Amino acid sequence: MKNPSPIPLPRVVILGAGLMGSAIARELLRLGCSVDVWNRTPAKTTPLVQEGAGTGTLQSVMTGPALVLLCLSNYETARAVLAEAEEPLRDAALVNLVTGSPTEAEEFSSWASERGARYLDGAIEAYPNDIGQSTTLVNYSGHVDVWTDHRELLLAIAGASTYVGERPGAANVLDAAMAGSFYNVSIGAFLEAQSYALSQGVTPQQLRSGLPYWLELLRRSLEEGISAVEGGVYDTDQATLVVYHDAVRSWLSTVNHADQRSTLLTANEESLRSAVAAGHGPRSIFAQHLLTSKSVFS
Amino acid sequence: MKNPSPIPLPRVVILGAGLMGSAIARELLRLGCSVDVWNRTPAKTTPLVQEGAGTGTLQSVMTGPALVLLCLSNYETARAVLAEAEEPLRDAALVNLVTGSPTEAEEFSSWASERGARYLDGAIEAYPNDIGQSTTLVNYSGHVDVWTDHRELLLAIAGASTYVGERPGAANVLDAAMAGSFYNVSIGAFLEAQSYALSQGVTPQQLRSGLPYWLELLRRSLEEGISAVEGGVYDTDQATLVVYHDAVRSWLSTVNHADQRSTLLTANEESLRSAVAAGHGPRSIFAQHLLTSKSVFS
Repeated sequence: MKNPSPIPLPRVVILGAGLMGSAIARELLRLGCSVDVWNRTPAKTTPLVQEGAGTGTLQSVMTGPALVLLCLSNYETARAVLAEAEEPLRDAALVNLVTGSPTEAEEFSSWASERGARYLDGAIEAYPNDIGQSTTLVNYSGHVDVWTDHRELLLAIAGASTYVGERPGAANVLDAAMAGSFYNVSIGAFLEAQSYALSQGVTPQQLRSGLPYWLELLRRSLEEGISAVEGGVYDTDQATLVVYHDAVRSWLSTVNHADQRSTLLTANEESLRSAVAAGHGPRSIFAQHLLTSKSVFS
Repeated sequence: MKNPSPIPLPRVVILGAGLMGSAIARELLRLGCSVDVWNRTPAKTTPLVQEGAGTGTLQSVMTGPALVLLCLSNYETARAVLAEAEEPLRDAALVNLVTGSPTEAEEFSSWASERGARYLDGAIEAYPNDIGQSTTLVNYSGHVDVWTDHRELLLAIAGASTYVGERPGAANVLDAAMAGSFYNVSIGAFLEAQSYALSQGVTPQQLRSGLPYWLELLRRSLEEGISAVEGGVYDTDQATLVVYHDAVRSWLSTVNHADQRSTLLTANEESLRSAVAAGHGPRSIFAQHLLTSKSVFS
């Protein structure tokens, strides 16, 4: 993607010149795209204009055919800005990189479709510094033609990007699951682990050198977890859920005894206790999946 | 390690023939070691005896020089069994593979040292099926001579094993941190993520294919977290703690709206809220480390 594309690149309009919008604009300029940027506070676009972007009023940038990338702060702002643009959205290709809920994506898609736009919802699973790299993921869902027509350009923004389904909320479902329930909780868990370990004389280097082991064990366990839930098989000849629960109670007591944070470990003890109470003790830890309703944990 | 060692292998006594003790006995027999096993319920040793292990009364197996591996259910049982063995522990090399707290390891070490034994505490960070593999980790701490004298044999049991320090509790500190606060909470977090995602139409295959991305992002973030805490540097030009907190509140609302489990995500929201309340909002998420006392989270 470093050479100009043999097919003409579309003009790209980026609404929102914050950290993420600016990173995307810079990457597209580097690739030789025609990029127009707009921001409610025009001064924010100045560095990008100096680097070759066009700018103008909202009405002027929205005039003429373009792929429109929405990099605004939330769905409500994105809708307000598009409504204000006056330009009919008929046949526009809208890619919304705002972060939000599946419901917001569905509602936005309906609103855009009613106005004739083809709508693709994107959830950026990376930091602004990661834009333009081959390993960066944006999940996209919605109008498949927007994805297929602009796939090369979207992969230039984030090379590991994936189309995850026609339902506009699908990308945000994966975001809430993986960025929300998994990734950021796992970071929180590690920070608790690290605080406790350092308080007990473990060195940063010991933590570093142990990390690959634990991440590999985690990978194996999560793959087993996916297969267990997929097959509905919760037998184990290794550690049962009740054995895990006993271990967690012991770890919790150790961490608390050292007067260290245990917010997440306490919560996990609560999950395992509920699973044992529901009769899943002799099964594998993946049987926590059978506790699907949040009302179990009250 | 598949050929008989050029130096004579020690006789190994394994006290406890449960799932883990039996797996270790089988691996050592396979390597050509002389192995004696003992279990309170003698019938449990029968399969191992059929595979070549010796057995006998507690007194008889404890007679004569040997490396003694303790694979019993807890520290209290291990101490009771050794006390019952009558054989003086003077000059015995004891390797305790029981799981427990740092305090239990320290107390056990003092007790064993008073009786003249050289004591090494081990924390097995793997499942019984993993015994004998090059990638399996047991952390050892305590009497360094036991580690250096029997290093080859201990690596044959678990090839990635590491000596983590002279303080007998060090292996259990790392266990509570990494197996407890990090690994098992991360599995719990993934199970919540998976339950929510599947309830919203995500397929097991989509979860599988996304996993390498999230584990790699996690690895990068945790390495950054170690360096941030090591250097005491909590600045960021990417997502700040308050931005994370807003995102977590939004994810939590999404998962709760779908009536799915959010025990751990709720706990993480609580951690981030406390960190914002303590004035760390403009810093990186690693500034949660500065909330060291559990009393902050009440």
